[in-house]
Amino acid sequence: MKKHNFSAGPCILPQEVFKEASQAILDFNNSGLSILEISHRSADFVSVMEEARMLALDLLGLKDKGYKALFLQGGASTQFLMVAYNLLEKKAAYLNTGTWSSKAIKEAKLFGEVVEVATSKDKNFSYIPKSYSIPQDADYFHCTSNNTIFGTQIKEFPSVSKPLVCDMSSDIFSREMDFSKFDLIYAGAQKNMGPAGTTLVIIQEEILGKVSREIPSMMDYATHISKDSMFNTPSVYAVYVSLLTLRWIKANGGVRAMEERNNKKAEILYNEIDRNPLFKGFAAKEDRSAMNATFNLTNEKHKEVFDKMWKDAGVNGLNGHRSVGGYRASMYNALSLESVEVVVDLMQELEKKV
Amino acid sequence: MKKHNFSAGPCILPQEVFKEASQAILDFNNSGLSILEISHRSADFVSVMEEARMLALDLLGLKDKGYKALFLQGGASTQFLMVAYNLLEKKAAYLNTGTWSSKAIKEAKLFGEVVEVATSKDKNFSYIPKSYSIPQDADYFHCTSNNTIFGTQIKEFPSVSKPLVCDMSSDIFSREMDFSKFDLIYAGAQKNMGPAGTTLVIIQEEILGKVSREIPSMMDYATHISKDSMFNTPSVYAVYVSLLTLRWIKANGGVRAMEERNNKKAEILYNEIDRNPLFKGFAAKEDRSAMNATFNLTNEKHKEVFDKMWKDAGVNGLNGHRSVGGYRASMYNALSLESVEVVVDLMQELEKKV
Repeated sequence: MKKHNFSAGPCILPQEVFKEASQAILDFNNSGLSILEISHRSADFVSVMEEARMLALDLLGLKDKGYKALFLQGGASTQFLMVAYNLLEKKAAYLNTGTWSSKAIKEAKLFGEVVEVATSKDKNFSYIPKSYSIPQDADYFHCTSNNTIFGTQIKEFPSVSKPLVCDMSSDIFSREMDFSKFDLIYAGAQKNMGPAGTTLVIIQEEILGKVSREIPSMMDYATHISKDSMFNTPSVYAVYVSLLTLRWIKANGGVRAMEERNNKKAEILYNEIDRNPLFKGFAAKEDRSAMNATFNLTNEKHKEVFDKMWKDAGVNGLNGHRSVGGYRASMYNALSLESVEVVVDLMQELEKKV
Repeated sequence: MKKHNFSAGPCILPQEVFKEASQAILDFNNSGLSILEISHRSADFVSVMEEARMLALDLLGLKDKGYKALFLQGGASTQFLMVAYNLLEKKAAYLNTGTWSSKAIKEAKLFGEVVEVATSKDKNFSYIPKSYSIPQDADYFHCTSNNTIFGTQIKEFPSVSKPLVCDMSSDIFSREMDFSKFDLIYAGAQKNMGPAGTTLVIIQEEILGKVSREIPSMMDYATHISKDSMFNTPSVYAVYVSLLTLRWIKANGGVRAMEERNNKKAEILYNEIDRNPLFKGFAAKEDRSAMNATFNLTNEKHKEVFDKMWKDAGVNGLNGHRSVGGYRASMYNALSLESVEVVVDLMQELEKKV
């Protein structure tokens, strides 16, 4: 039976990517060797790393603009720490829109003063705060573009005179933007970019070197930049599968085409959530994420029936996060429109049934 | 043509592991989903992580002895930092046997006083220093069990009253020892344990919680222990392939059987290095590594001929590291005796030819 994978991450990747990724485990580039057993210093892998770094910048329109792309380890959780290690001299400004920004704030506090410019915690992070001011003396401003757990997404980013840092883990490569507004973008690969195990970091080089502390080598962006993202053994396979996914994005029309398809998927699902009296959306309408739709039953008594229906239909990962309950449909780049239609049909079927 | 992969790491893994690892990319556990697209919180993956953690302890004889096993990200290079973050209050003692211990020392110096108890730098790290004393007031003693680049290996570890910390990246699971002598063992997976992208850390829990500094969440062993190595998204696939490799070690007789085969491989290669007038070993005989044999030509003029011979024979990764030159044969667990015999035959063929 065909599976419809709505998992929040690690999540669905293109089937073509899985095929090529599986083959490379047996024989990479017709070398007679598995990609898992080759040296990361081999010409074959150095070329994977370089192509992935270039393609990431290319897809975001950031080539030749002073940015460097790195594929590091440790996930966004390590970036919470590295951002502060490298940029926080005295004071930093953070927008708190959910679990991940709260964690980023917690780690930054070990390195200096953190000003939370606004938070939506008062309504369980169901909206994006919009009117706030950023202290003039902040070293940088940090925000989270998409909140996987609560299903909200920043549609317009503030204009700031200070470095703009953004955790784009759950929506990078999913929509067009002027990415050159940002000075540091980071994203765990395991949503739109690849499997778990590597983290993309894109940095405008000129923002580095402004803090007075000594930075441990592995925490220092400058170390990784100076070694072309090969200071130590990278997460070889995760970088390779990310490259395959980036190539797929490019071959399928780039970020603009991804956005069009993602908007269409989000539209049909949110339309059904709003139309169907058995369901209600969780996030404020104007802040709804095109990546993660969070919704609940209006009456919990239908839960058992609905859960059985979607599980029987081959739908995977539709359970909501415990912080929100209900359902969460994660509709990353590789999820087909057909899969969303399957869920919409099930919602309509439930309505007829009860 | 059959390949003989002597790569220093990432390196050869068992062919059976590659087959199963390739299949799981297409369909994991008959779930209809790729292992790359499932949630790390799914029952299927939680069971992978738990089995890998238990099996690592089991193979080292460390079950039920107060140790915890973790699969983290960032490689041994991140452990250089984490060890000091978690254990270094005032002073630490390090044995310097090569590139990796030098790097560990460099990172530790950011956190406190580091006493280098001995070094073999005077002879380009070609031996293991043996008579040294460890300061009574050191918070811990750190050493590197096997030096991949120089081809030396510690055969006897000192008895210390302080926590004994060891970087076993390149020889863990390759030989029997009383591992309960150690309080913290770490190892990048990409030699005997799995592919690049995950790092095994084994900790005696009682050594933690003794430093006064605040430790960032991702740097804190206690964080990872409290979350059963799932504080953040782990490097899912690298952990899975490590589990497959650990299962292979167990099914093939465990660490004792690995050691027997490794010793046999090392013996026939070192015998040839010592017998053949065209070659000379690099490392001091009593400190020779069973994992990485480093050797040079006695006359460089044969280099071109010999290099062509082994490349034509399907041998891969025999080039020495630039710090030593010549050749390095890395003979990790998964390398067959046959592959070593191929190289020995080539060395004898060269002798007849010139």
